[in-house]
Amino acid sequence: MQATDRARPLRVGVAGLGRLGRRHAKNLAYRVPDATLVAACSPLEDDLAWARDALPAARLHMDYAQLLADDALDAVCLVTPSSLHAQQIIDALRAGKHVFCEKPLSLDVAECERVVAESRRYEGQQVTIGFMRRFDPSYQDAFAKVQAGAIGRPFLVRSQTSDLNDPEGFFVRFAPTSGGIFLDCTVHDIDVARWLLGKPRATRVFASGTIALHEGLRAAGDVDNGVAICEFEGGALAMFYASRTMAHGNDTSSEVIGTAGALAIGHIPSANRVEIYDAHGVRSECTPTFFDRFEEAFLVEAHAFVAAVRERMGEGAGMGGQGATLEDALEATRIGQALRESMRTGQAVVL
Amino acid sequence: MQATDRARPLRVGVAGLGRLGRRHAKNLAYRVPDATLVAACSPLEDDLAWARDALPAARLHMDYAQLLADDALDAVCLVTPSSLHAQQIIDALRAGKHVFCEKPLSLDVAECERVVAESRRYEGQQVTIGFMRRFDPSYQDAFAKVQAGAIGRPFLVRSQTSDLNDPEGFFVRFAPTSGGIFLDCTVHDIDVARWLLGKPRATRVFASGTIALHEGLRAAGDVDNGVAICEFEGGALAMFYASRTMAHGNDTSSEVIGTAGALAIGHIPSANRVEIYDAHGVRSECTPTFFDRFEEAFLVEAHAFVAAVRERMGEGAGMGGQGATLEDALEATRIGQALRESMRTGQAVVL
Amino acid sequence: MQATDRARPLRVGVAGLGRLGRRHAKNLAYRVPDATLVAACSPLEDDLAWARDALPAARLHMDYAQLLADDALDAVCLVTPSSLHAQQIIDALRAGKHVFCEKPLSLDVAECERVVAESRRYEGQQVTIGFMRRFDPSYQDAFAKVQAGAIGRPFLVRSQTSDLNDPEGFFVRFAPTSGGIFLDCTVHDIDVARWLLGKPRATRVFASGTIALHEGLRAAGDVDNGVAICEFEGGALAMFYASRTMAHGNDTSSEVIGTAGALAIGHIPSANRVEIYDAHGVRSECTPTFFDRFEEAFLVEAHAFVAAVRERMGEGAGMGGQGATLEDALEATRIGQALRESMRTGQAVVL
Amino acid sequence: MQATDRARPLRVGVAGLGRLGRRHAKNLAYRVPDATLVAACSPLEDDLAWARDALPAARLHMDYAQLLADDALDAVCLVTPSSLHAQQIIDALRAGKHVFCEKPLSLDVAECERVVAESRRYEGQQVTIGFMRRFDPSYQDAFAKVQAGAIGRPFLVRSQTSDLNDPEGFFVRFAPTSGGIFLDCTVHDIDVARWLLGKPRATRVFASGTIALHEGLRAAGDVDNGVAICEFEGGALAMFYASRTMAHGNDTSSEVIGTAGALAIGHIPSANRVEIYDAHGVRSECTPTFFDRFEEAFLVEAHAFVAAVRERMGEGAGMGGQGATLEDALEATRIGQALRESMRTGQAVVL
Repeated sequence: MQATDRARPLRVGVAGLGRLGRRHAKNLAYRVPDATLVAACSPLEDDLAWARDALPAARLHMDYAQLLADDALDAVCLVTPSSLHAQQIIDALRAGKHVFCEKPLSLDVAECERVVAESRRYEGQQVTIGFMRRFDPSYQDAFAKVQAGAIGRPFLVRSQTSDLNDPEGFFVRFAPTSGGIFLDCTVHDIDVARWLLGKPRATRVFASGTIALHEGLRAAGDVDNGVAICEFEGGALAMFYASRTMAHGNDTSSEVIGTAGALAIGHIPSANRVEIYDAHGVRSECTPTFFDRFEEAFLVEAHAFVAAVRERMGEGAGMGGQGATLEDALEATRIGQALRESMRTGQAVVL
Repeated sequence: MQATDRARPLRVGVAGLGRLGRRHAKNLAYRVPDATLVAACSPLEDDLAWARDALPAARLHMDYAQLLADDALDAVCLVTPSSLHAQQIIDALRAGKHVFCEKPLSLDVAECERVVAESRRYEGQQVTIGFMRRFDPSYQDAFAKVQAGAIGRPFLVRSQTSDLNDPEGFFVRFAPTSGGIFLDCTVHDIDVARWLLGKPRATRVFASGTIALHEGLRAAGDVDNGVAICEFEGGALAMFYASRTMAHGNDTSSEVIGTAGALAIGHIPSANRVEIYDAHGVRSECTPTFFDRFEEAFLVEAHAFVAAVRERMGEGAGMGGQGATLEDALEATRIGQALRESMRTGQAVVL
Repeated sequence: MQATDRARPLRVGVAGLGRLGRRHAKNLAYRVPDATLVAACSPLEDDLAWARDALPAARLHMDYAQLLADDALDAVCLVTPSSLHAQQIIDALRAGKHVFCEKPLSLDVAECERVVAESRRYEGQQVTIGFMRRFDPSYQDAFAKVQAGAIGRPFLVRSQTSDLNDPEGFFVRFAPTSGGIFLDCTVHDIDVARWLLGKPRATRVFASGTIALHEGLRAAGDVDNGVAICEFEGGALAMFYASRTMAHGNDTSSEVIGTAGALAIGHIPSANRVEIYDAHGVRSECTPTFFDRFEEAFLVEAHAFVAAVRERMGEGAGMGGQGATLEDALEATRIGQALRESMRTGQAVVL
Repeated sequence: MQATDRARPLRVGVAGLGRLGRRHAKNLAYRVPDATLVAACSPLEDDLAWARDALPAARLHMDYAQLLADDALDAVCLVTPSSLHAQQIIDALRAGKHVFCEKPLSLDVAECERVVAESRRYEGQQVTIGFMRRFDPSYQDAFAKVQAGAIGRPFLVRSQTSDLNDPEGFFVRFAPTSGGIFLDCTVHDIDVARWLLGKPRATRVFASGTIALHEGLRAAGDVDNGVAICEFEGGALAMFYASRTMAHGNDTSSEVIGTAGALAIGHIPSANRVEIYDAHGVRSECTPTFFDRFEEAFLVEAHAFVAAVRERMGEGAGMGGQGATLEDALEATRIGQALRESMRTGQAVVL
């Protein structure tokens, strides 16, 4: 949050103004001193109406091509449907923009590879995929401790993404296009595991799952609770758990175990520092959604992206190096696909 | 729990077979290898009926004098009404018995002093007052750490005795004879504070209180929530809190603060190692009563008393030294009385 | 953080650019969309140099009078030495500005009363004293729960301000002018207690203290650990603890106990959501300073002040009502002074 | 612990007087009122010397056959090497004794089946295998809550057995005969999972492992950290983790997740109720070994075994039904073997 000696803030345009897009837009507009939100686009009139009120300084477009045509833009922030990410990243690179794109890069490994290949032609431009968990202050602290050797050599990560049950089952309707629980949820845990373990390649996976509550998922071959094991080159391991059916809230936690100690992040998903003492016992209320849990992570992520772009422009060093690269995103999709394959076949899948 | 090479176990008789008396009796009968329960007395037929079933090996008496007349007894364990303690201790000493007596020694300072004076004539006999908190494994661990210098010089104790609210208000009916909240509850915290701080003498106290729920206490000059500060010679301090009106359970906790660290004992009064995740959040159920909270303490206390007697008989060293002496009990009553006086007058009381 | 439909953001000037002043300035400049930092003043060249870099949009002054003379200013934020607060507030009111002022209002009760009296002439202008703890999200949640009746009638607050020991003893040098531990630290706890208990008036207090480590305080009649009890009209109570000598970090916590439950805020002062498992056991690192602990509170406080001013201007309802008023600040100083008096005399002090 | 109206206590003989055998012997001798320890056997003179001192009332034998020949024995407690369990159980049944036997029944599935088959001929005799975790008070509480429907339908168990690293690597020397980490450690978690999930049969497993510290295990095909997934009929799942290399202590925990909530048992392996505040932060020390962690479970288990025998004798109902049967032990070995097979082949194993 250090304001730096500089010519002008980074000019960013946001594409996509849904719930998460709005958060990114407001962070860039009001909470990242080194950036300014100069434009936004959405095909939806509601979104644009919101933006006219909340982002009075931004030029508004209905069309992504218009946004890219804006010469005053240094970078774009993509918060669009996942199926558009790959092509929109390529288009932005071709238009000379730095790119921040929400996860996932793509549900299709080949498409991920195509973006990676294309991006090689634009080495001067920053591309970061939004695995925001890396920027949560607690994950950052754990990562720094691992780097500093606090737990010896890390060899096992356990990580989970567990959502409060939605009785409406929004994700059931979303199942045919979400890629399934491993590509939609566990992909975050995959990225966390690789990040904490030093970015090893996966060599073999096994996954399983069950439908606890949402029978509607069966048609799409999906489950509401999934478990998985991932072996990495060099002998490291990961265990993953994803759930859509928690009763207590969003319970996102990770653990990294090393030869000299272990670190747990988010063991108890308490909403805040309040403990309630009553006839139920002693309790903490829980973070209801990932949106609440990672509010600060999204902001730190935005700072880090801006810092990474500036660093690339030779304008000072930042923490940009910690964001997920296209290669990281490709590997996350590759592993997620293998988990889905393993669950479908009941067999371990060798990568 | 080490069984030792010995002629015979210590022969103990229990006086009083109420809820706590029964626990002491069963501990001595079945869970302290170095002791054997040879006799018990109670004026109540119900108690004796219970004893005939639960303590088949014990001789039963209706009368304390009969119990003392039993030559086969080495020691007595007094779990009788508080108002009888002082004289019963003296009678037991005169009968040549070692004595374990439940707290309080007496609500009357002069009577405490009389017992202390009388006991000087029976130096060869052990007298321990049942401040069981000293024998709870967590309190023991904290005490050992303080002794080992883990927190530097201890200078402040905060300690509380908080009971689950009893809507029936049993203690309201008991108020005229209980001595009030400070002599009934805080006396444990006073003893803990002195024990952890190296047994200093109190020099000045201030206390206050309020009636949160039980208006019936007003007639007895008592409160259902009391707070106090105690200054000790040498500059150490204590803060006390006692409550009869907790919604979540028995919440007994203490904290000792030193120049190089602090120790908290029983911060969260969880009943066990189970955490419940549901719509209320993440929670632990709480220990319902002191009886549940200190189950193990009562047993360790019995072991320690037996060990103290054996040590005194020259039969090996034990942890007997950690029990509260008559002098400790006198000091606890003296401070408790001063707290009551301070609350009544609204003035600090100098001791 | 909702940007609202409005003519223009509130124009604020900051007076004082020390560590806390800089935080306020940056919050207002970059993180409060409804406000804009248009000016800042400090008599120190270093501060102004910092501001030229970090706050390029602000007009800089060496003198508070110059700042007040700036017609483009709607409000001032005072982060100046405590002894200047009272007169600077009056000057700002006379200049037609809304005022946010860091605590304490004044260490002198008469001076507090003078400001309260003077402020009555400027009813249209907002004056908020910076008891930031009220704006910490966990304190906010607890307050809302109390208001909603979650714990029945609140009748007891326990609250503490405990700082990591500073072996350099900065506060020792500051002791002659700090007002002592109760006016410097406990004043926050006093405000929290009154806020959570429904703003009752104090009727009697008792305080004591000890010097655990910093003998240098003795000359100023101050201590490095202080304890206190406060009685309020209507029977509510508070217990306070303040320490300068903690080994583990800044440990600021409060607890409010009601007839149907209790709430603890900040029970464990963990720095974040990381738990470390190693040869020391399982542990959380702690928040090192109040500055880290209350980072978010300072920001929410700034939002709330801006909202309060807008509400007063008829520009929509906000959470402004939750800030401490001049009357609250007067009462905090009155109680703090009584605590100091009680510790000095060893007697309870009736207010 | 209720002493009951009865002719005489159950007469038990213990076979094996190693560390765990001694604990069982002392529990039966001194802490289970309904039982009496009448005999013990060990081939080791040291053990017998210990017994002469600690168990003065027991007849001592060097030979298991002698123990079984003792007509005054109602039951035997086998704490002998695992490879002897199967035959010793059969011999005891043939001698008309009830049997408590430490886990595992056998590392060989066929041998387990042989014992199960043979035991069918002795329906009147109790046989319990010592999966003591079922008797830990916290596991008992969780089980009762699951039974009462507190978490809806349980569908996933996560369970781990993690031991403090032993730099001496005792278990490395033990590896050739221990059956490997899954049969030695995870077998407890397998039993817990089946018990909490309603005793389903496993249908498919996958396991993996790594050597973090103890290269000496490689020769035996073993690992010091193992992970596994187990699918059960009906769709329930389990995830297991076993480690020999923890830095903080014995960390045995389990979690059962249902459609309406979840229960965690032993989330934080704190040794007691003490929290330490110092320069390391706020911490709990951890239970060093399973022996410490499950001290109470071993005692409750002994009570339950005695109650189960009495129940079988028509002497009143007990909690005997909660002990692991031979069939449970067979299933645990069957699953454990499949995990070992899966880790060796890298393939999922269908049962």
